[in-house]
Amino acid sequence: MHQEIITLSEERNVTLTAMIQGVGGEFRGISARPAVLVIPGGGYQFCSDREADPVAFAFMKAGYHAFILRYSVGEYSKWPQPLKDYEQAMECISDKAEEWHVMTDKIAVIGFSAGGHLAGAAATMGRRRPAAAILGYPVLRRETALEIGQNMPGIPEHVDENTCPCFLFGTRTDSVVPVQNIVDMLNALGRFHTTYECHIYAYGPHGFATGDHSVQSCETLFPERGARWIDDSISWLHDLFGDWGNEGLTRPVLRPHVNDDALAWLSLDCSISRIYGNPKARETLSETIRKMKERITPFTPEMTFDDMMQALGKMTLRDLLVERGIDTDKLDELNEALGKIPNI
Amino acid sequence: MHQEIITLSEERNVTLTAMIQGVGGEFRGISARPAVLVIPGGGYQFCSDREADPVAFAFMKAGYHAFILRYSVGEYSKWPQPLKDYEQAMECISDKAEEWHVMTDKIAVIGFSAGGHLAGAAATMGRRRPAAAILGYPVLRRETALEIGQNMPGIPEHVDENTCPCFLFGTRTDSVVPVQNIVDMLNALGRFHTTYECHIYAYGPHGFATGDHSVQSCETLFPERGARWIDDSISWLHDLFGDWGNEGLTRPVLRPHVNDDALAWLSLDCSISRIYGNPKARETLSETIRKMKERITPFTPEMTFDDMMQALGKMTLRDLLVERGIDTDKLDELNEALGKIPNI
Amino acid sequence: MHQEIITLSEERNVTLTAMIQGVGGEFRGISARPAVLVIPGGGYQFCSDREADPVAFAFMKAGYHAFILRYSVGEYSKWPQPLKDYEQAMECISDKAEEWHVMTDKIAVIGFSAGGHLAGAAATMGRRRPAAAILGYPVLRRETALEIGQNMPGIPEHVDENTCPCFLFGTRTDSVVPVQNIVDMLNALGRFHTTYECHIYAYGPHGFATGDHSVQSCETLFPERGARWIDDSISWLHDLFGDWGNEGLTRPVLRPHVNDDALAWLSLDCSISRIYGNPKARETLSETIRKMKERITPFTPEMTFDDMMQALGKMTLRDLLVERGIDTDKLDELNEALGKIPNI
Amino acid sequence: MHQEIITLSEERNVTLTAMIQGVGGEFRGISARPAVLVIPGGGYQFCSDREADPVAFAFMKAGYHAFILRYSVGEYSKWPQPLKDYEQAMECISDKAEEWHVMTDKIAVIGFSAGGHLAGAAATMGRRRPAAAILGYPVLRRETALEIGQNMPGIPEHVDENTCPCFLFGTRTDSVVPVQNIVDMLNALGRFHTTYECHIYAYGPHGFATGDHSVQSCETLFPERGARWIDDSISWLHDLFGDWGNEGLTRPVLRPHVNDDALAWLSLDCSISRIYGNPKARETLSETIRKMKERITPFTPEMTFDDMMQALGKMTLRDLLVERGIDTDKLDELNEALGKIPNI
Repeated sequence: MHQEIITLSEERNVTLTAMIQGVGGEFRGISARPAVLVIPGGGYQFCSDREADPVAFAFMKAGYHAFILRYSVGEYSKWPQPLKDYEQAMECISDKAEEWHVMTDKIAVIGFSAGGHLAGAAATMGRRRPAAAILGYPVLRRETALEIGQNMPGIPEHVDENTCPCFLFGTRTDSVVPVQNIVDMLNALGRFHTTYECHIYAYGPHGFATGDHSVQSCETLFPERGARWIDDSISWLHDLFGDWGNEGLTRPVLRPHVNDDALAWLSLDCSISRIYGNPKARETLSETIRKMKERITPFTPEMTFDDMMQALGKMTLRDLLVERGIDTDKLDELNEALGKIPNI
Repeated sequence: MHQEIITLSEERNVTLTAMIQGVGGEFRGISARPAVLVIPGGGYQFCSDREADPVAFAFMKAGYHAFILRYSVGEYSKWPQPLKDYEQAMECISDKAEEWHVMTDKIAVIGFSAGGHLAGAAATMGRRRPAAAILGYPVLRRETALEIGQNMPGIPEHVDENTCPCFLFGTRTDSVVPVQNIVDMLNALGRFHTTYECHIYAYGPHGFATGDHSVQSCETLFPERGARWIDDSISWLHDLFGDWGNEGLTRPVLRPHVNDDALAWLSLDCSISRIYGNPKARETLSETIRKMKERITPFTPEMTFDDMMQALGKMTLRDLLVERGIDTDKLDELNEALGKIPNI
Repeated sequence: MHQEIITLSEERNVTLTAMIQGVGGEFRGISARPAVLVIPGGGYQFCSDREADPVAFAFMKAGYHAFILRYSVGEYSKWPQPLKDYEQAMECISDKAEEWHVMTDKIAVIGFSAGGHLAGAAATMGRRRPAAAILGYPVLRRETALEIGQNMPGIPEHVDENTCPCFLFGTRTDSVVPVQNIVDMLNALGRFHTTYECHIYAYGPHGFATGDHSVQSCETLFPERGARWIDDSISWLHDLFGDWGNEGLTRPVLRPHVNDDALAWLSLDCSISRIYGNPKARETLSETIRKMKERITPFTPEMTFDDMMQALGKMTLRDLLVERGIDTDKLDELNEALGKIPNI
Repeated sequence: MHQEIITLSEERNVTLTAMIQGVGGEFRGISARPAVLVIPGGGYQFCSDREADPVAFAFMKAGYHAFILRYSVGEYSKWPQPLKDYEQAMECISDKAEEWHVMTDKIAVIGFSAGGHLAGAAATMGRRRPAAAILGYPVLRRETALEIGQNMPGIPEHVDENTCPCFLFGTRTDSVVPVQNIVDMLNALGRFHTTYECHIYAYGPHGFATGDHSVQSCETLFPERGARWIDDSISWLHDLFGDWGNEGLTRPVLRPHVNDDALAWLSLDCSISRIYGNPKARETLSETIRKMKERITPFTPEMTFDDMMQALGKMTLRDLLVERGIDTDKLDELNEALGKIPNI
């Protein structure tokens, strides 16, 4: 490992700390690594050390490079300056990607509290979007954001079809940043069928960071399960980016969207009800539908094929076809055909 | 352990299976036990065995009695018949509480899918409410409920101030019961400041029950962390009911409400902003406020006392006063005084 | 689930409690189940309830049938009566195997303290050996055994090549049954290359059972990791018996012996050094050796092929040949040939 | 965090990498930190990167400073050169302890394979002994040690009363360093009543390091529980060194010895049988014994007091007296008196 601290702005005291791991040699099959960009909290007044290094270490152990962004705070925090700092950091990482052996399409942001606001902004409004966002007891609602800074935008209202998958966690009893900040974000991500994972623990204080006693008072009431977000989010990143295989990362098991219903054109990854409700799509698929009718046994004798399609309507068509044994070539062909039909 | 199967309705094939553990003797200090009432799913068409015994065993290991309710399904499932079955089961448990050594105020319902709908109804509309509800990939929204039965009510709209704490889990990619069922419930519980815990795993099928391969195909894509809901919900129940101590259960760490802002009268467990915003309460507390002004150092020199109260507004007044060392007698006195002021 | 209590001896108060789970129906692909036979401790003076049901529930959740043996204690405990009780229990299970859907070749014993002594005796001296033994803070050394009963045999000295794989756990500070009981057993199992797993926690009392507060005082100093033996032993049983697959159990990943060096005839599962040290085996394998010489690159240029064989001497020959891509037919042929050579 | 690489010998390419964390400021109550000294394996031929940084990160997340020792290998590895390198590293840490804020009495060594040999040597033969040793699939037996270097000493035969507590882990099927290396060490530590913890997983390869796929092929058969050694050993270190409290570390729950029976003078922390078997001690304790006779109820009516003392013989006298409510002043007095009696 080697560490570099890069000053992004001397005036505003903005720095990017890079903690770069080795590749090759005994790290067989690793020629580049995915990365996390840690964004500590502190109410846009300071950058918390407790939400910086300890978090980075956990992801470094899992094989990731770690970066820590100390962004503009206090008098310099006027929006969108912090977001500009983020963009500058991503640009810097991108510039050095070859030297540092970073997979630039596999960078996750991890933000806490106000840092969760900035990470959320990166995920929804950034020019260079991260590939995943881990948001800890984040400030997201405009109402809460305005309490920590003038003109701070709300995040849920900026969720769009390009928003990356999010992992959200916090406690129900957080009396600094209400848990409703998380729930509103789930609603927003739901509207765009964006992939997410969410762990809300029943109680615990704001700002628990890793939950270790080295960063949080041992006298605080905090459920032991509350510290599981780290292992869980690492496991989630493996699902999304791929785990380590013999030659780099393996094929991910998670797609960025649950289905493609929010995209502009149809695909096999749209839900059955979406496709089936589109006359042009039904026409395109007419022969496939005919074949499926032969293969599909309704749940009950009274059910018609159309009933079945409705019952399974939330499944993606791809999942159904794979399950029924339609072969891959045919799938590609169908997908291509659907891709020419507007999703309206 | 001994098992009894009690027929609640022969015609409708409704049964209550009681799995009763020993007390006393080597189970030192245990003279009665809390219980879980397991309500399996099955779309109100059948009661799934995979969501019955295996779930009961997990909670029995943790020291709970377990009951399994097989309720009216198919032609007999017309609402509110299933809820009536639940009421009958609770009555039966209540009648036998002494014989079976059940703590009747510590009964949690655990429902899955359609059983989660019934458990949710018990928690929001039941005459005999459970003390906690664990809801797995539950049907809750009216829209989803109507897909599995005519006249099935939506649950979130029935959440009230007497709704018990809820533990909710499911997967983001559930294509049978959309995860939005859970998110809507979080919104509803939030409105009444009800305690909850929530774990939404990024992917996995509907109906995964315990997540063990004995109940779920080993070929299913399912994150290992998805099976943690059992340990997590047991740990949550310990927080809510108390863990086993030397003489029965210890003092719980979790209260049923995050704060009392949804109740009819004020109390120390209302949020500071709620109390501070009530002129009568401010008058009642005038002397306490005067004392607190001496003890509280604002975060920054510019802050006034009122600024501080606003910054801490989401905390309960009790938490603040305890932290600042106000003694217990004084707290009781204040609580009594606040209890005479309508929460408007 | 249904429960039967079978009296094996009225006089000696010996019973077998059978807790039998369902098969078929929704338990797709399960037509029979493996089982655990729980043998509680109690110094051969009584049978502890705390080491009975709670343990059974954990394994039942994992899909196993559970049996609990309450054996001869007190005045009736004269050796070998308890072992005879075990034999009778196994016979009973065997007789009812079809009715109860038990896989009789997949029965694990789980014994605690004195029950660990009995389970250990079953594993080493039983006529009907279990397929696996889980031994919790067990009495195993003759020295310790004599403290709880006259003529009680030591277990390590009876380990033989038919002893089943063992999972051992206990605490370093056990002041009732010293941890050396476990260590002596590891030594004995080592001599026969028997598969084992072992978890010795740094501290904790004797008799902690599941480690839950429902069976162990919450005031006892006990490391949280001490309760992991249950999940770990279930996971170990899955490795040894196979996990649940789509049609019964999958292929196990664990063999009963690390290698076959303790058996009477050679096989591919003997260690390389064992085979290579046998002139007849070297002759039999001469052609294979010639081929391997072509395929094996020594670690350093100076190494000869013989050096390599010595360096890899603790590996089984099968593992080496599989790694080097020798095909399966050839492996079977070699194994057959080696099986005719006495292991001397 | 900042990192320094200190060259201990340019000729032999020996380095100490120091990864130093911050203290004070937001790390409230932390003015110094305990540390781990990581000693990678590599058969004394090289120092494995896979057993260096990833291990350090795990302990850094837990609040420890981490050091990595790259010691003399290959032609320079002639014993005792590696042990001298260790001594030099400890001296260097000691010299810089103030600058780096290291608690020099709370340094644990963590060694793997050949590095486990060196860590074991440090724990048994070092002039500056570590306070704890974590030994992963270590080379310990002289027989195994001689395979990786001439004159390499065996470790178990050097265990003495000053050997620090050990945490040992490895796999049963390790075909490079047989698990018997661990078992022999347990026997040796047992003889001196030294505290230990031990996890032997049923299967898995040599050299699995953290068990993460970033350091170990995803195709390797390895039980998921095998990666738990890290969390378990961190938890064990907290038990031994104290966890983080509000002002530095809390009081440890683990003592370095199970009892003081191996020390030169008696104490209350000797076992009851040891003390009770010493005539002079019995005389010294005569009055206490008289009082205890009044307070102790034998397990059965037939038992005499002497029977009871024998039955409880493996307990420390302190534990018995505390349990029976003898007060602290009296305990101190008794301990002082016993401390004047040779333990023979």
